[in-house]
This record gives sequence, structure tokens and C-alpha cells, in this order.
Amino acid sequence: MGLGTVAIPEVTKFFAEGDPHEIIRFALENFSPRIAISFSGAEDVVLVDMAVKTGGEFSVFSLDTGRLHPETYQFIDKVREHYGIPIEVYSPQAAAVENLVKAKGLYSFYKDGHKECCGIRKVEPLRRALRSLDAWITGQRHDQSPSTRTQVAIVETDPVFSSPDHELIKFNPLAKWTSQQVWAYIRENNVPFNPLHERGYVSIGCEPCTRPVLPGQHEREGRWWWEDQTKKECGLHVGNLER
Amino acid sequence: MGLGTVAIPEVTKFFAEGDPHEIIRFALENFSPRIAISFSGAEDVVLVDMAVKTGGEFSVFSLDTGRLHPETYQFIDKVREHYGIPIEVYSPQAAAVENLVKAKGLYSFYKDGHKECCGIRKVEPLRRALRSLDAWITGQRHDQSPSTRTQVAIVETDPVFSSPDHELIKFNPLAKWTSQQVWAYIRENNVPFNPLHERGYVSIGCEPCTRPVLPGQHEREGRWWWEDQTKKECGLHVGNLER
Amino acid sequence: MGLGTVAIPEVTKFFAEGDPHEIIRFALENFSPRIAISFSGAEDVVLVDMAVKTGGEFSVFSLDTGRLHPETYQFIDKVREHYGIPIEVYSPQAAAVENLVKAKGLYSFYKDGHKECCGIRKVEPLRRALRSLDAWITGQRHDQSPSTRTQVAIVETDPVFSSPDHELIKFNPLAKWTSQQVWAYIRENNVPFNPLHERGYVSIGCEPCTRPVLPGQHEREGRWWWEDQTKKECGLHVGNLER
Amino acid sequence: MGLGTVAIPEVTKFFAEGDPHEIIRFALENFSPRIAISFSGAEDVVLVDMAVKTGGEFSVFSLDTGRLHPETYQFIDKVREHYGIPIEVYSPQAAAVENLVKAKGLYSFYKDGHKECCGIRKVEPLRRALRSLDAWITGQRHDQSPSTRTQVAIVETDPVFSSPDHELIKFNPLAKWTSQQVWAYIRENNVPFNPLHERGYVSIGCEPCTRPVLPGQHEREGRWWWEDQTKKECGLHVGNLER
Repeated sequence: MGLGTVAIPEVTKFFAEGDPHEIIRFALENFSPRIAISFSGAEDVVLVDMAVKTGGEFSVFSLDTGRLHPETYQFIDKVREHYGIPIEVYSPQAAAVENLVKAKGLYSFYKDGHKECCGIRKVEPLRRALRSLDAWITGQRHDQSPSTRTQVAIVETDPVFSSPDHELIKFNPLAKWTSQQVWAYIRENNVPFNPLHERGYVSIGCEPCTRPVLPGQHEREGRWWWEDQTKKECGLHVGNLER
Repeated sequence: MGLGTVAIPEVTKFFAEGDPHEIIRFALENFSPRIAISFSGAEDVVLVDMAVKTGGEFSVFSLDTGRLHPETYQFIDKVREHYGIPIEVYSPQAAAVENLVKAKGLYSFYKDGHKECCGIRKVEPLRRALRSLDAWITGQRHDQSPSTRTQVAIVETDPVFSSPDHELIKFNPLAKWTSQQVWAYIRENNVPFNPLHERGYVSIGCEPCTRPVLPGQHEREGRWWWEDQTKKECGLHVGNLER
Repeated sequence: MGLGTVAIPEVTKFFAEGDPHEIIRFALENFSPRIAISFSGAEDVVLVDMAVKTGGEFSVFSLDTGRLHPETYQFIDKVREHYGIPIEVYSPQAAAVENLVKAKGLYSFYKDGHKECCGIRKVEPLRRALRSLDAWITGQRHDQSPSTRTQVAIVETDPVFSSPDHELIKFNPLAKWTSQQVWAYIRENNVPFNPLHERGYVSIGCEPCTRPVLPGQHEREGRWWWEDQTKKECGLHVGNLER
Repeated sequence: MGLGTVAIPEVTKFFAEGDPHEIIRFALENFSPRIAISFSGAEDVVLVDMAVKTGGEFSVFSLDTGRLHPETYQFIDKVREHYGIPIEVYSPQAAAVENLVKAKGLYSFYKDGHKECCGIRKVEPLRRALRSLDAWITGQRHDQSPSTRTQVAIVETDPVFSSPDHELIKFNPLAKWTSQQVWAYIRENNVPFNPLHERGYVSIGCEPCTRPVLPGQHEREGRWWWEDQTKKECGLHVGNLER
């Protein structure tokens, strides 16, 4: 299976030391316009910034779980205006949310884990977002997670959202970047960022499932902190867990 | 048209000086269990408190627009736990929200008014919530609005959500109470309240459409402040506007 | 004893229904330049605004207890810039503060009352501020306190800071104004105000001794709330307590 | 010149790889009770924690500039209660503060640098605090500053506060620790910390001169950010600048 005519292992090898710009250029050249950037956090705007500067047709989508911070909604609109691009925002199905809340209240994740709520509020909308794409670009990085993201490939066949009759390619151009590199890029290029990053938040997801971290604390400790540190994926990148 | 066998004008006259407790007792006696309290703000928990103490079957519903303050979600769960009652939470339809956001962004209401967004995020879910009811109880008060709520009846046939083949009765037991009376009741009875009330917020709706007011400022100035003061209803009580 | 040649009872009678502007004009005409406005809260900037518009020489002083909110320091500087006037800021004596903190910690007032701390941080500096004055103007109002301020005179011989050989006159031009009137004036005249007023604070003093109030709660409940409601004066106006 | 009978270069060499605990033990053994820990930030409570566990007589002092965050005052009291130790809190001289504010307002440091204000609010009180001591212990670390603290010695004759007739020894037991190590110690030992560290603040001083930093930003960028990065010392450790 391949990237158009290029085989994945060869591309991976080719980009082993690759600059994220080159990876994005490659991705856009081969998959435009059926390629999208998945946007929520700081890293993702770096991708948008690079892709806009690279040129080419691509879409940007975001998942509105209905439980984001007010600052995150403002941030999404700010990115839209800053780059003058549309951002497709996907919402969860009313009936699914209503049933979950009716059965378990608004904070069930604290009791029986975030998987069910993420499934309804993030994964189902993501599945719709990916339906008409051949490739997507994410901001996953090796240093984001103590265990789930250390093996993230720069390019791969999406292990979760591909189907027998539809291969979906997933690019992770920042896989080898550190948090330091991401933030250096953001400041050097005046990339817009979520104002919560000025209040101690590093990795930002839904409001009830996100908290600021202390100096020197790993960013992943700010997410689903009541759960096991080694199993923190929301479903977007759940393939990471199985490796 | 009547309340079971009782005509509305007579009931209204009967309750002209009526205590909210008596009105709620009357409402529950005549409409239980097909009666619900619509819950969002401080006044509404007063209604819940009175209804729980009165006894009888009733439901409580809340509209989760997907843009409430984090504190409001916590507050809804706190009320649920405090009174040990289920609260049905209604969500907007994914497609309607997605289309609005795609066409106009996440803050269209600041440009062309709150009516379209309220229609999708509040009124449609409300319509579903009311579908199986014969009566609902709201916390509307005369002193809430400089113009739209001065004539709120204690009991009325709902002018918006009734249909030719289904009369819906609307009770507003607090119509004649002042904000002072509501807050005196809350403190005397240890009724839970939204923590935003400790930060200058009086009337609380969606996060982007709510702001704190200054001392001495009318609570309605904290809602849709960029719009004409005399036309502030979200659609739940839009019948008020036409009188 | 008199106001220059005018007796206090007659002046009081004269101003019984008087507009604050007229009282301030009278005060400035008779006592300039040995007259000052004591500035801390919202009311006081109304006085500054009126005095600046009236013209005449007067000073403005403020008491920096060392425990004010960051927002209050910003507010003091904002007033200085807005009106282009100097504001004399008085600080407490190092040794007195150090001894209190050494003996009782930084929050002794919660245990044995605010009087000792106010004495060191407010009253001693105030005494120095008043030393070279013949009159001062304060923002005291009848409706500020459930018990201590209901009899505040529009003009009086200061019962606390006058001495046998030096009479100090105290003007309270807003004595008969309500909080509503103060805030209406502020908004109509674009008078600068402390941003804490947008977060539920009404009466603002030192940070640890001030808190926001709920809707409908009396402003004085936001000050020294752990003490008896009828005895809340910081020492500036302690004469009120003895009447 | 020496540490009692021990010469400084030899002590320094001895502790080159020394554990902070050993350095503190040595300091207390040689200088107790005329030795104090200077307490303001996160690192300093690590020192207090180690010293309390080591045992021996020492004092702890803190400089209350009159412009600390409310959270910092609470933190000081929390440390006092947690360890059951007195903390001597030094305040600036009223006249000096009043003169500065009268001449230049409450925010002069933004215009002509922090040196004058720090001189009045920090250095003069520090001088008094150090007067009766033979040694003090600070939390300075090499990795705190891009330029001023890279050469901080583990032990030295204080270059600023010693006088011809009174040698003052300065211990910096954490000189070689990284921020990561400090925070690991804090969490493992349940050491109290300033709640501002949960809101993006790393290095914390006076409120107007401190701000949170972004992820990956050096902690020193949160202090006196309007000034040259290479000259950031408040006067306590100004000897660092001259090396």
C-alpha cells in the first residue's frame, strides 16, 4: 500500500531527519485537496502556519466537544481570522450526548474514564471529518507522552480510521520536535496561541479534563490526571496505545 | 381554554397576591407528572427547591447550548446532587450547529444578533423538551427586564409553544418577586447557586453572551449588551416581545 | 466653633437638600488650599471629578496599607493620569507593621478583629495626612452601612481627628446619595473605576478584608464579614460608631 | 578569610558535588543560631524543609515589599503554619516609599528600571535583616538566569552585604540543582508552594514585576521583562552582576 506511488517505509526513511516544512510540502503535493489539518492545540497552529506558507489546497477542521474552554473557542476564531482560512468545526450528535448525560451526568469521565465521553464528543465527529479525506496531518510529538507517543511515525497508514476499502494516510510532521522547538517556532513566527498557555496550561483539551501543570511537570499530567499515565489518548490517536 | 377545569383568568386573579409556594402547589396538583421546571438560572433553583419541598412528580430540564460557562455545568451537577433529582439536559442538533459555524463562525451573534444562534442552541432543544409536557414552570420575573418582562403573567397559555391541538400552560410563580426576594430566599434556604454570582454576574446565559454588571447596573445589561435593551429574549419567552 | 465665619448647624441646614456639587464648591471656597479629598473607593473618584470640575486648589491623598489589591494600585495610578493631578500616597511605619506581623502573623485580623491592623496600616498614616489640613472631604454615604453610617452629616467637626487646638472640618457631600446615584454619575461622566467592580466587588478596602457580594447583598457584607455587622468602620470614620 | 576555621575555597571544593542536605547541615553546624534562610520563592521552601529536617537553630526571614501578590502573603503564612516556625517579615521605610511614589508614581520601575524601587522595598529591609547574622542561605541556582546566576558559588563571602568589620557568609546549596530537581523535591516531600505556580508563574517576585511564562520560556522572562535579559537582579544578589 502506498502514498500514491511512494511506499510508506521509504518515505519515512526519506524524512527520518526531515524538516517539518518538507514533510508538509510532500503531504500537500501528494494529497491536496483531499488532505486536512486537525486543529486543536498549539502544535496544530504551527502546522497551519507552515501549510499556509507552503501553499496548496487543504482544509482545517476542529472538534467542538461542547465542553471546550471559552478561551479555546476564541482561539479557534482568532486562527481563522489570522490566516483568513475557513475552519470546519464538528459537533457531537445531540441524542448521543443527551443519553450519556441522562444516564451518567455531566462528569461521568471522572468515575469511569474518559473513553466513553471522548467517543461521543470527539471520535464520532472525527470519523465524519475524516470520511472524505485521503490524508490528515496532526501535531503529535514523541515528547508529548510518557508512553503513548514515543513511537509516533512521521507518516503512516492510519491504524484506526483506515478501512479495507479506504486507506487514510496520517502525517505527524512534528513527531521529532520537542515542546521547546514548537514554542520557539510560535514566538519567532508570531503564531497565534491559546491564551490559556499564559496561565500554566500546556496540553489543552476539554475544560473539565484539562488542568495547568506545575513548573517542571510533564504536560500530559495536565490531562485526565485521575487516570493511568500510560493510557492517555482521546481516541483520535488511539492506535498509539496498541503498539 | 382552561387548566383542566379551571379557567386561566380566574386562576390568575386567585393568585394575584399569591405566594410562589401556593402557585407551585397548584401547578403540581393539576399537572403532575406532565409538568417540568425549566432550569438555568438562580431563580430556577428557587423553583426546584419549592417544588421538592411541595412534593409530587415533576421533571427538571436544562438546555446545554454547548457554550455555557464551565461553572454553569458544575452548577447543574451540583443541583442534581443537592436535591437527588434527575436533570434532563438537552443538546442542539449537530448539523444545525455545524452549518451555522461553517457559514458565520463561532461568534456570529455579535454581528447579526443572537436570534439565529439561540434558535439553534436553545429553542429547538426546548421545543423537544416541551413536546411531552402539559405545563412548564419558569423563573421569569417582572423586574428582570426593562421592557420585555414587566407584564409576565403568573399563569398563562404559552403563546409560543402551544399548538392548535396541544395547549401548553406556563407558570411563572416568581413573576412578582424582586431580585432581592429571590436572593433572600436562596440564602435563607441554602439553595445552591452558580459561583459566577460571586463574581459580579447576575443574569447568566451562554458564556459569550453574558457579562458581569457593575454595582447598580440592571441585570439585563449583562446579557446581549450589544443589542437594543428592549428586545432581549432568547426565544424561550419570545412571546413577551409581542405584547 | 465654625467654618471660618459660618456655623456648622447653619451650613448643614443650608445644604440639607444640597447638591454635592454645591457642597464641594462651598468647601473649596472656604478651605482651599488646606483641604484634601481622601481617596480609595468608587465614591471618592466622584468627589475628585466634581472638585476638578469646580476648580480651586485641593490635594488628594490615598492610604497604601501594603495589602491593597493589585487592581487598586493600578486604579490609583489611573486616576492620577486621568485627571492629571498628584495623589499623595501614605504608607504605614515599617516598625509597627513588622512588630504586628512578628507577634501575630499576616492575618491576625481574622482572629482578633481588624482594629489593630487598621490602626497601624490606615489610621496612623491618615493622622499624618490630616496633620496639615483644615478640612477633608470623604465619600461616606448613609446607605453604605446598616448601622454605622445612617447618621453621617454633610458637614461636621471631625470628632476623631480634631484636637483642642486644631479644628478639622469633615465634609461628606455624598451623604444622601444612594449607591445607584453614585454609579449613575460614574457612568454618565466616564469616571474611572476600580476594575474589581466588574467582578462583584462593591465596597473595596484591603485585599484580605474585602470580598465580592452576591446580587442583592448589602455592600458592607463584603467587608470584615467575620465581624459584627453593626461595627464596621476602619478607624477613618470611627466617630460614626459612637453616636 | 574563612568559615570559622574553614577556608571558603576548600569548602567549595569539598561540596563541589555535594548534596544540598550536606551543605545545609554544614552551614547550620558552623553558624547556628546566627544564620537565616531568606525566603520568598519555591526554592526557598525547599531550603526550609531541609533545614527543619536537619535540625538546629536558624531563623527565616521574608521581605514584604508591600506589592506582593495576595497569594504570596497567604503562602508565607502557610509555610509558617506548615513547619510551625516563626517567619520574620521585613517592611520598607514609610518615608522612602512615600517619597518615591510622590515623585514618580506607583509604577516608576516600568520607566526607569526596577533598581530604585527594589532598593527601597527590598534591599534596605534586607540590610536590616542581615545585620545580626553571620551567614545566610539562599535558593539561587545556576539555571535560573541566562547570565547573572551561571557562576553562583555554593558558598562565598557575600560580596555585597559583608563589611570591612563584619564578614557575612552566603550559602547557595541549590546552586547546581535544576528547576526540575527543585520541583521533584517539592512534590515528593509535599512542600507547600505558592498557588501562582499553578497558573503559569515560575519565578515570583512583586506583583507588578512578575508575569507567567509560556511553555518552554525561561523563568527569568517572567521578571522585569521590559529590561535587558542580562541584568536581572533585584539587589539581593547584585554581586552576581559584577563578576
